[in-house]
Amino acid sequence: MRVLVTGGAGFIGSHLCDALTERGYEVWCVDNFYLGREENIEHLKVNKQFHLSRFDVLDKAKINALFSEAKFDTVFHLAANSDIQQGSQNHKIDLQLNFLTTYEILEAMLAHKVKNIFFASTSAIFGDAKQVLNEDYGPVKPISFYGASKLAAEAYISVFVKNYGFKAWILRFPNVVGERCTHGVVHDFIIQLRRDPSHLMVLGDGTQTKPYLYVKDVIKAILIVFDKAEEPFAVYHVSNEHLTSVREIVAIVTEEMSLSGIPIEYSGGKVGWPGDVPYFEYDISKIQKLGYKYIYNSTESIRITVRKILGKE
Amino acid sequence: MRVLVTGGAGFIGSHLCDALTERGYEVWCVDNFYLGREENIEHLKVNKQFHLSRFDVLDKAKINALFSEAKFDTVFHLAANSDIQQGSQNHKIDLQLNFLTTYEILEAMLAHKVKNIFFASTSAIFGDAKQVLNEDYGPVKPISFYGASKLAAEAYISVFVKNYGFKAWILRFPNVVGERCTHGVVHDFIIQLRRDPSHLMVLGDGTQTKPYLYVKDVIKAILIVFDKAEEPFAVYHVSNEHLTSVREIVAIVTEEMSLSGIPIEYSGGKVGWPGDVPYFEYDISKIQKLGYKYIYNSTESIRITVRKILGKE
Repeated sequence: MRVLVTGGAGFIGSHLCDALTERGYEVWCVDNFYLGREENIEHLKVNKQFHLSRFDVLDKAKINALFSEAKFDTVFHLAANSDIQQGSQNHKIDLQLNFLTTYEILEAMLAHKVKNIFFASTSAIFGDAKQVLNEDYGPVKPISFYGASKLAAEAYISVFVKNYGFKAWILRFPNVVGERCTHGVVHDFIIQLRRDPSHLMVLGDGTQTKPYLYVKDVIKAILIVFDKAEEPFAVYHVSNEHLTSVREIVAIVTEEMSLSGIPIEYSGGKVGWPGDVPYFEYDISKIQKLGYKYIYNSTESIRITVRKILGKE
Repeated sequence: MRVLVTGGAGFIGSHLCDALTERGYEVWCVDNFYLGREENIEHLKVNKQFHLSRFDVLDKAKINALFSEAKFDTVFHLAANSDIQQGSQNHKIDLQLNFLTTYEILEAMLAHKVKNIFFASTSAIFGDAKQVLNEDYGPVKPISFYGASKLAAEAYISVFVKNYGFKAWILRFPNVVGERCTHGVVHDFIIQLRRDPSHLMVLGDGTQTKPYLYVKDVIKAILIVFDKAEEPFAVYHVSNEHLTSVREIVAIVTEEMSLSGIPIEYSGGKVGWPGDVPYFEYDISKIQKLGYKYIYNSTESIRITVRKILGKE
């Protein structure tokens, strides 16, 4: 199996490159190193099945040359700006990195007769829905540029599936945590406390409550959906069945850094930033029917992430 | 009231310019004349409330200059490629004319502090859903580039409403027919029969069955939603409560052209072209609660359109 992983040097992408090379697949990783990091894939460079290309997916000449040369069976399209806060400051980032990359990948696939695409989507397409979300839930009313750009990408994938016989696996991620993450609440807290351990600033009132899934449980989900989902347009939600509040995350981070009891300042308000969804919960019965089992619950995922970042595990 | 109508020289846009000038609004019409036509607005040129600009909405310098000068209260964004078949041949058309125009209009509105947008959306965002569609129906799985681009546009409007306090009125049109239409089944049949009245070629098997709404009933819906819908992100479906099959349209066109009984050739298959949705039906109870009443049912809308195009009315 010959596969392209876009964003393959990124947080989730690099874990996926690990898993796919372990399966014996020949893996081409394309990354512009916007969020990707050299150290995430350093260990893969010695592997003959692993090929690294440093360019932007929006560089049409380069992407077409790579498609011509490599003759992919499947594209795992993970290249994206995954930093939701960033997108509210510069709207073009999500438009280009999330939506237009997807559009251009689909066009390149069509031109080169590659018909299988895995796409990393998100709960953010639903906006602030306030109920348990199954895959068919409507209405979809994103409140972040990240969510809007991923919904736009899903819409275009749907058209390529229907019109050109593509097969698509779309996995809508929750918050994903674990080693190699580049942003997000755990990462932010640790960076803040390393800089100044005397107190912690928390965005919002700390009651935001969501599922956090450990990155290796996400990789398991990607592989089970890829192996077993048979529908041409296969959409799945993945999560564990637990939610963790920001206040619980504060407690875990300060405890693991031996800083329990330091003053915590909350910026206030129900949401951390414009576009933040303060609560969401997935119905994961569909992926469970494929046999999916996660290992870590949400709070365990947070703790293991904190310990990995701190070098304790 | 100072309003911008993008695509104001087009089929529906020009009827809307008529209605808004009749209300006494000052109307700026921007059109690139891709589908817009000089003759649709000829009669408005003598009206001092009506201002015509000939440029493309994607021309940022010109759109920003117009926003600076005109100080709009509301934008009615109708500029689009409305020819679904066209989009399946050239994917960039819908991407640019439907999605990117909307994105750029939203950015221009944000820059110039204009917060009210009416947006012309479509049943095509749902794809081939096979059930009566209310506004909150999910999943949304478009099967045409037209549908995908309009869904992407809706997604971005949702974000601007939530993040920047915009107010949006989104009306999802069914098939719209009437004088000044530039394409679609009625238009195609008449053009074909004027060229060669000996027989008629019909795409699909003729069983495609949908609501067709007369353009003036669409304008009524736009105005009632604009006047009465109070939600910040107000999404409404509009239609009459009747469906018409392509075979019925064939009968009406041939009868009105005194060609009943000519041989009809069907290309076969359930759909007319890639991306065609062969059946859909809207739940219109939400817009009816605002007091909306249409005048013409679907078959009457077809007949009046045929008669108008033929110059009989």
